[in-house]
Amino acid sequence: MKTDLDNLLKSAGFDAIWVSGPSTHNPPMAYLCGTGQLTRADLFVRPGHRPVLAHGVMEREEAAKSGFDLITYDASRQRELLKENPNDILTASALYYKELLEEAGVKQGRILVTGVREIGAFHSMLNKLEELMPGVQFVGDAQEAVLLQARATKSPDEIERIRQVAQATMKVVQNTWDLLANSEVSGQTLVKADGSPLTIGDVKAQIGLWMSENGLEDPDGFIFAIGKDAGVPHNSGTPSDPIELGKTIVYDIFPCEKGGGYFYDFTRTWCVGFAPPEVQQAYDLVDRVHFAVLEGLEMGKNFSHSQTLTCELFEAAGHNTIRKDKTAVEGYVHGLGHGLGLNVHEKPSSGNLDDPSNELQPGHVFTIEPGLYYPESKGWGIRIEDSYFMHPDGSVERFVDFPHQLVIPLKSQA
Amino acid sequence: MKTDLDNLLKSAGFDAIWVSGPSTHNPPMAYLCGTGQLTRADLFVRPGHRPVLAHGVMEREEAAKSGFDLITYDASRQRELLKENPNDILTASALYYKELLEEAGVKQGRILVTGVREIGAFHSMLNKLEELMPGVQFVGDAQEAVLLQARATKSPDEIERIRQVAQATMKVVQNTWDLLANSEVSGQTLVKADGSPLTIGDVKAQIGLWMSENGLEDPDGFIFAIGKDAGVPHNSGTPSDPIELGKTIVYDIFPCEKGGGYFYDFTRTWCVGFAPPEVQQAYDLVDRVHFAVLEGLEMGKNFSHSQTLTCELFEAAGHNTIRKDKTAVEGYVHGLGHGLGLNVHEKPSSGNLDDPSNELQPGHVFTIEPGLYYPESKGWGIRIEDSYFMHPDGSVERFVDFPHQLVIPLKSQA
Repeated sequence: MKTDLDNLLKSAGFDAIWVSGPSTHNPPMAYLCGTGQLTRADLFVRPGHRPVLAHGVMEREEAAKSGFDLITYDASRQRELLKENPNDILTASALYYKELLEEAGVKQGRILVTGVREIGAFHSMLNKLEELMPGVQFVGDAQEAVLLQARATKSPDEIERIRQVAQATMKVVQNTWDLLANSEVSGQTLVKADGSPLTIGDVKAQIGLWMSENGLEDPDGFIFAIGKDAGVPHNSGTPSDPIELGKTIVYDIFPCEKGGGYFYDFTRTWCVGFAPPEVQQAYDLVDRVHFAVLEGLEMGKNFSHSQTLTCELFEAAGHNTIRKDKTAVEGYVHGLGHGLGLNVHEKPSSGNLDDPSNELQPGHVFTIEPGLYYPESKGWGIRIEDSYFMHPDGSVERFVDFPHQLVIPLKSQA
Repeated sequence: MKTDLDNLLKSAGFDAIWVSGPSTHNPPMAYLCGTGQLTRADLFVRPGHRPVLAHGVMEREEAAKSGFDLITYDASRQRELLKENPNDILTASALYYKELLEEAGVKQGRILVTGVREIGAFHSMLNKLEELMPGVQFVGDAQEAVLLQARATKSPDEIERIRQVAQATMKVVQNTWDLLANSEVSGQTLVKADGSPLTIGDVKAQIGLWMSENGLEDPDGFIFAIGKDAGVPHNSGTPSDPIELGKTIVYDIFPCEKGGGYFYDFTRTWCVGFAPPEVQQAYDLVDRVHFAVLEGLEMGKNFSHSQTLTCELFEAAGHNTIRKDKTAVEGYVHGLGHGLGLNVHEKPSSGNLDDPSNELQPGHVFTIEPGLYYPESKGWGIRIEDSYFMHPDGSVERFVDFPHQLVIPLKSQA
């Protein structure tokens, strides 16, 4: 949690964090800076000191929402430095950052640098800045030891924000179910009021509107894919495809709060009207695996054991898995789950048994999403995903309930 | 334009470009990679060769939309390298990238690195990679000599995409006008059907929906601010503020294509019902300055002359300007305009007479946005902004027309 940050920084040997970039779609800035809409900012956090936020002159009111000490970028000083270093924006920019860091009290030591922004010019500037500030070292956190570790264990406030995203997401999902259930049929295809086919693109457009109406944003898109497309886990769907009865639809939706805050992640697989017996059988198996994984979770146990269990269960039922064949594209072909928060994918991960940060802790928020995929040989795919969090006593709670039901019965056939 | 890229790379002394990060909200990737939705990718462009795109195994169909040569990230190779370098993700990651670059044909020379992604770990990894590849140097483009220069001059296709964003934006703006014009009044305040005040927050929620309905996204937010807030150029508006008659509303909307493509940028200032004479007078002045700037534009002339002209005209009318006082918060307090494309702010800029990249060229797309601000002393602000592009003959075209009209007459008072 955020309260662990000072200790995490110290044990990882960092003297400060420097977060750069906008406040939107920039998880470390969103985490440490809170609300407020900044197109450009630099945040300096030193253990035991008030954070310092540097911001543009025109965004002073947004910056003030942080409650931090503020520094306003000084454009005329930047111009002066550029005049003193003609045709050398790199040096001028590094000299300006040197002054900014010193004003923020960051004068020496090992500085953890993070944030989402353009990487190239900033990389060159950091190297120049190290030349200008010999006592300072700028280091990325490749081990993800600090911020992602703090972020992995959510506070009750964060759990509540994710729950609200989950509830808003369920309104979108219910609307989608209703749209399909209430559609008319012509031949084997859903049709619109004018008799033309209801397409994947039509439904996706509606889903986009419903997300917006419910205060959600989908920076990473979403998946609404039918038939063979549903069998390719990250295929987002072909807009011109009609919705045909009895074909699997994989609907994987992972929206976040507007501006790039907390995410939710959810998948259902549906067949409209009826499901072929083979698909229903596979669905029931995926569902059993989902709940077997859920029951196997324990505080302190590495989340990657869930991946092992999933592979065992699918293999026992005669399916190929990514454990047996790392390049598999049919059978069970991906990871069982992942942490969820200000990124769609964060700690813990089901991907690495050797990584102790994957040991389940109270406050961990994560997905369970087993699936089976036969795009080429059978033209279908199935995935059932819910997101969960762990309570302090080790019990695990699903954020929201939505039925695991494969077939959407048609009202017109009722 | 994109066709200038090989030459721009060569004259800037680069042997290749490496763009890293997702395909969404990542302008260099959007520019060079085109459509397709990739959560993570690395693109390598060498003059005279087919570009090479590295992508995750589950996004192969999205990656294939690029038409480029493809490399699939090899997760098992990454795990092997991590086993060979225990507890050293940095080295393992740099070794993996070394193999990736070599497979993509990037084996030596000066490599321009760009893209939007987390900066810290990537910075450290690049430094490690330089150790591992002694013949290679990774350089950011602080001078913005290559990609931003190519991007500044838009092709007819790009102009057309921006025009479509402009047209969609106008639908949103017209809806907003209609909502205000058709509202009922109680006392000095607009009210909703239930008699409660129509607030800035209510209108902002509607604007968000209309953007979504029209295929637009607002990653950087938008401004709908009234009264004193309207006088602080980047104040985005206080949701609880009621819409009072006769107060200035600054409505600055800068949405982009869904997923972070091309932007449009547009501002109107409105007073509902009536405008105080002082405000109308200031509005008319801002409007005259807008058109004086437009008429003063010439191919080859530095865009920064527009800023000089604007300051001269406002000063002649007795207003303070940022030219006279760099810290001014009342009067004319910002830049006249900026280029527009895959970023809301790109080349050319009205901010630097010494920068030849601000000399207006055919294909340049830019805003004109003079304004006057008196937040504390008078409680109002005014800005009138349209976006324009330059034709090959040097003539300048506004993307879309929307009246420069301060007062929104109320239907209920008609």
